[in-house]
Amino acid sequence: MSNSFGSLFKITTFGESHGRALGVTIDGCPAGIELDLNFIQHEMTRRMPGQSKITTQRKEPDVFEILSGVFEGKTTGTPLAMVIYNTDQKSKDYSHIADSYRPSHADYTYQEKYGIRDYRGGGRSSARETAARVAAGAVAKLALKQLGVEIHAYVSQAGDIKTTKSHEELDFSLTESNIVRCPDPEVADQMIALIDEVRKQGDTIGGIVSCVIKGTPVGLGEPVFDKLHARLGAAMLGINAVKGFEYGSGFEGAKMRGSEHNDHFDIVDGKVVTKTNLSGGIQGGISNGADIYFNVAFKPVATIMRDQDSVDKHGEKVTVSGKGRHDPCVVPRAVPIVEAMAAMTILDFYLLNKSTQL
Amino acid sequence: MSNSFGSLFKITTFGESHGRALGVTIDGCPAGIELDLNFIQHEMTRRMPGQSKITTQRKEPDVFEILSGVFEGKTTGTPLAMVIYNTDQKSKDYSHIADSYRPSHADYTYQEKYGIRDYRGGGRSSARETAARVAAGAVAKLALKQLGVEIHAYVSQAGDIKTTKSHEELDFSLTESNIVRCPDPEVADQMIALIDEVRKQGDTIGGIVSCVIKGTPVGLGEPVFDKLHARLGAAMLGINAVKGFEYGSGFEGAKMRGSEHNDHFDIVDGKVVTKTNLSGGIQGGISNGADIYFNVAFKPVATIMRDQDSVDKHGEKVTVSGKGRHDPCVVPRAVPIVEAMAAMTILDFYLLNKSTQL
Amino acid sequence: MSNSFGSLFKITTFGESHGRALGVTIDGCPAGIELDLNFIQHEMTRRMPGQSKITTQRKEPDVFEILSGVFEGKTTGTPLAMVIYNTDQKSKDYSHIADSYRPSHADYTYQEKYGIRDYRGGGRSSARETAARVAAGAVAKLALKQLGVEIHAYVSQAGDIKTTKSHEELDFSLTESNIVRCPDPEVADQMIALIDEVRKQGDTIGGIVSCVIKGTPVGLGEPVFDKLHARLGAAMLGINAVKGFEYGSGFEGAKMRGSEHNDHFDIVDGKVVTKTNLSGGIQGGISNGADIYFNVAFKPVATIMRDQDSVDKHGEKVTVSGKGRHDPCVVPRAVPIVEAMAAMTILDFYLLNKSTQL
Amino acid sequence: MSNSFGSLFKITTFGESHGRALGVTIDGCPAGIELDLNFIQHEMTRRMPGQSKITTQRKEPDVFEILSGVFEGKTTGTPLAMVIYNTDQKSKDYSHIADSYRPSHADYTYQEKYGIRDYRGGGRSSARETAARVAAGAVAKLALKQLGVEIHAYVSQAGDIKTTKSHEELDFSLTESNIVRCPDPEVADQMIALIDEVRKQGDTIGGIVSCVIKGTPVGLGEPVFDKLHARLGAAMLGINAVKGFEYGSGFEGAKMRGSEHNDHFDIVDGKVVTKTNLSGGIQGGISNGADIYFNVAFKPVATIMRDQDSVDKHGEKVTVSGKGRHDPCVVPRAVPIVEAMAAMTILDFYLLNKSTQL
Repeated sequence: MSNSFGSLFKITTFGESHGRALGVTIDGCPAGIELDLNFIQHEMTRRMPGQSKITTQRKEPDVFEILSGVFEGKTTGTPLAMVIYNTDQKSKDYSHIADSYRPSHADYTYQEKYGIRDYRGGGRSSARETAARVAAGAVAKLALKQLGVEIHAYVSQAGDIKTTKSHEELDFSLTESNIVRCPDPEVADQMIALIDEVRKQGDTIGGIVSCVIKGTPVGLGEPVFDKLHARLGAAMLGINAVKGFEYGSGFEGAKMRGSEHNDHFDIVDGKVVTKTNLSGGIQGGISNGADIYFNVAFKPVATIMRDQDSVDKHGEKVTVSGKGRHDPCVVPRAVPIVEAMAAMTILDFYLLNKSTQL
Repeated sequence: MSNSFGSLFKITTFGESHGRALGVTIDGCPAGIELDLNFIQHEMTRRMPGQSKITTQRKEPDVFEILSGVFEGKTTGTPLAMVIYNTDQKSKDYSHIADSYRPSHADYTYQEKYGIRDYRGGGRSSARETAARVAAGAVAKLALKQLGVEIHAYVSQAGDIKTTKSHEELDFSLTESNIVRCPDPEVADQMIALIDEVRKQGDTIGGIVSCVIKGTPVGLGEPVFDKLHARLGAAMLGINAVKGFEYGSGFEGAKMRGSEHNDHFDIVDGKVVTKTNLSGGIQGGISNGADIYFNVAFKPVATIMRDQDSVDKHGEKVTVSGKGRHDPCVVPRAVPIVEAMAAMTILDFYLLNKSTQL
Repeated sequence: MSNSFGSLFKITTFGESHGRALGVTIDGCPAGIELDLNFIQHEMTRRMPGQSKITTQRKEPDVFEILSGVFEGKTTGTPLAMVIYNTDQKSKDYSHIADSYRPSHADYTYQEKYGIRDYRGGGRSSARETAARVAAGAVAKLALKQLGVEIHAYVSQAGDIKTTKSHEELDFSLTESNIVRCPDPEVADQMIALIDEVRKQGDTIGGIVSCVIKGTPVGLGEPVFDKLHARLGAAMLGINAVKGFEYGSGFEGAKMRGSEHNDHFDIVDGKVVTKTNLSGGIQGGISNGADIYFNVAFKPVATIMRDQDSVDKHGEKVTVSGKGRHDPCVVPRAVPIVEAMAAMTILDFYLLNKSTQL
Repeated sequence: MSNSFGSLFKITTFGESHGRALGVTIDGCPAGIELDLNFIQHEMTRRMPGQSKITTQRKEPDVFEILSGVFEGKTTGTPLAMVIYNTDQKSKDYSHIADSYRPSHADYTYQEKYGIRDYRGGGRSSARETAARVAAGAVAKLALKQLGVEIHAYVSQAGDIKTTKSHEELDFSLTESNIVRCPDPEVADQMIALIDEVRKQGDTIGGIVSCVIKGTPVGLGEPVFDKLHARLGAAMLGINAVKGFEYGSGFEGAKMRGSEHNDHFDIVDGKVVTKTNLSGGIQGGISNGADIYFNVAFKPVATIMRDQDSVDKHGEKVTVSGKGRHDPCVVPRAVPIVEAMAAMTILDFYLLNKSTQL
């Protein structure tokens, strides 16, 4: 508990970094979605390790297999199960941490909570688990496509280098044009240089992924507790290494006055719109039809190629040395994960919203 | 859907700002909690309007009545229902917005989602609904008290005025010593002056509430999706006017390097601790026993005492004028709400954690 | 946990027999239902004690008050809360069972589970709690009325006296024509005579309530675990004193052969129908458009006006004597409860079914 | 929705009869259960087709593979995923029902609900799905074993042949001694003869599975709606072909008087017990420590080796002919399924009960 996410489009992920397989079941997948397998694989590949010099050099093909829920190319409304078998399992890499607690990892807390843990590659707490989310998110994206909803995530900050352009000024067709996934090419170059430098130092660095959702109908989101942004926030905070979430004006909004923050309504082409969008497309927890946009802060990856003081499960002080192949900065590979979680959240609210009126 | 919050300690709130009553049921309230009614009323009073010159002058006594679930002063394990009757209902104040959509309020989205809305005082989207949360949160606090957990929220920023002291440098016994609820008295004075000035201008301003949770056992939080901070974040983002949430290093963490961000483990008095706490007391989504701390950003209150352009539900352009009695800044009254939501989240995880092992 | 029922139309009931009030919240009540208050009161009155010589002589007016969720006569989509205040609380009647465990009541199990119990009138385990279900069920019925669904429950058996007529042979307009609520008037007279005789003996007797649901669309019910009949069964088994549930051919079906049990499909007026209906309107857990029908078995009421051997919470043997005012047979008053639970189950599946396809 | 079962020990099953695989995930599996793989396979084999002359002659090895959640022979508290690959897929057998609706099958209702269906072997509505439940149930049984709880299901009736012995008079070590799984050997012989005769006629027949649960602690079950028997009933009614559920006195109880039905409490060896057990081990929805026992009625299998009138999805009348390899009577193979569902229900309540008191 709880490895499940969603209310009506409900996924359960399973699997450890070095176990037999990772996977996901989707219970409540609507019937009739055309399953474009190439698209799903494309999304998996975006998240996959070994993509570039600024990601981990681990080679995992991340090929998925669908076990159920599809017939003649379409979803049937029965559970869709997807499995990604683990192949590149270098379990020996991790024998040194069988007893030791790596700093700022989940080793200690898992051991204390469960009384047992699969320490190989971080086990269940490995970011490898997000492969299953991306697979399920790709299905949600295919459903949203039929509904006219588009989701664009991108790296807006790496360390202290950030784009100064708003989401409205960016051209999202450029996001995939560089290995850091920043649609502001000049800034992207600086980010790449920084990450590469940090990598060479055996260190890691944090960053921010921003995301824009376009084309949502008015009415998504369930007040009071399941506000659209509350669930989006929970979805993002459920991604490994995330430390913060803000939408619309975000933390800057705390400094503003009501007279400058309020979004005035207008009528354009017979449609109610807002002249500004500090609300981030959400009012009272419900989508108002404007762009939904938010930022997700990621801490630096905890595994560094340096010796660190720590303790082991016998209560002895130890030195933990970084081994294995790890990402110097998580945000480029986090882009498809943010999109996947956003897609599932939006689709779930779309389905929930159908029961609002008889 | 969904006016419920929590998994095992599950509350459902109900009620509109100008209806007959607000209230809450707690399903899954553990048996045997000693119910200190004075304490619950004390918490209600902290949230109550009309406390000071920097809060709304609306007078609502916010007296609660318990309808069920208590016997001879203790909870019985059956649902605890609490009701707060509405008394100060000036419905006439709101006739002017029966058809108009107030900027940055939930009027438009409610109308579109439900096809009907109780426009009086914001109806269900009024922050008055949080009175019910504070009542339920007070019960959770009483349970946590028996478990040795303490929760301290406070105003750390109002507009651009903020305390520079960390939560470890603050004396929380000072929080209630001033009307803005900032435990840094000099900064509190500046905040009060700012809010009062903004109020006189008929404007409003945002702010940040910070919160520290002390004394949680190791092991609370459910990976993968229901990480402790993901649920805390959702709880906070479910509070009216919240735009962002960060815990531990938060958005600052995005700029840091792994070598400076990692919290090294140590043994002190035979106990595993971390030398630093940029993790914010949570690792891998699970509490590690250190202080849990986080920030919650609130936007400026949308109701201002000025004329604003807007539209009505017939698609006509209108001018909306601020009327009624509203808060110039929401953060002082948000302090007990943040604590209530945090208390319920922690208690819920405490109960969930019991099923981790046979 | 769990005083909640339903997935999307989700109710939570609260209240003890001799506490301040009973009540219910409906979270997920669709917006736009016209709330006919007279109808709701009519349903409450059908369940109310003191209706006739064969029900308890306790006088409880069972008047409900709506606290929220309604505006200008219609539901708003926000939680609808209803309260029934307790007025006829003769708590002294129950002092004799403060420590003793009444045979076949919930006294012992509540005490062991919770470590505390409100013993007055059975506290939470009193059938009085079902008043709240009937109130919520009446709202569901009003929604179903708009959808063309009708629900007819009736007493088909009291003790060993039963109607031999099938539901298709009965005229449901006669159900309310007699105090036992059996639409077979001659059999009704025999049932009334039996129950009255049993009552005079200070004893009680069981019975069966049957129910037919007409007009459900094809497609309600969620395979695999939440089959329409699985949820209906759980709803019925959740009513106090119920010992069994069967639908369609039921337990008789266990004796039959496939060649006689199968319902052959036919086309009538261009519509797919079944020639017979041993399936009870449900195939593979999903409604097929035919009448849904089922039986619910109730045990005799546990409180009898005789001395019975028992033990108390100190482990001493005691004699428990029947006191208070109790029903000699529960089934006449159970009829509106069965209908209420069925109505909420069907409405919930109707709402869930909307998310089956995009 | 909903292919999930349970609250804290929550399973999701997936897979179609002729798809790639069937399987199950367990979210909330407690850490530290010793996983006896031979025991799990043993349970699978009890449900497997092709066991004897009175079951289907289909050959499916039903070998399971664990994909996650286990480390060094023990559960880790992370999701346990199990897969059973389909091998004996004779999809051609089913081409004749691609468009036709088999009588009393789920073909018509699935088609109408989802607008699409995998018709091969019944797709998701095939009883083959229960293999996944048996796998998960075996894990629950291993957990219950550590807690001292035993579950014994058996065939008590096939057609109109039934054992007259109560569960207390039977020797459960005999259940597996015959192919019909009736622990009353003489009656078992009669049952076998009847089923074999029915099979030769190309027909099928129903039956009853009874079940006894021994060793449950006092306090399991959650009033009001999630009474122990309400959830057990839902679990059983969720099994394919089930038409009824009764526990304790069941439908017979409807004929009884309170004076004969009440179970008087007694003290034996300092422990509270009941002298009789018509309550079926459950009072007020909560286990009282006595044996829990119940009956589950199964209809005759719908697939018979005869021609039957039906319609197809184009609205044309057709004749459906029985093909393939099917069970003449489902109850022998249903025994391990009933036990699996009971085991998961009891374990779930055991975990839930931990949160009743702080």
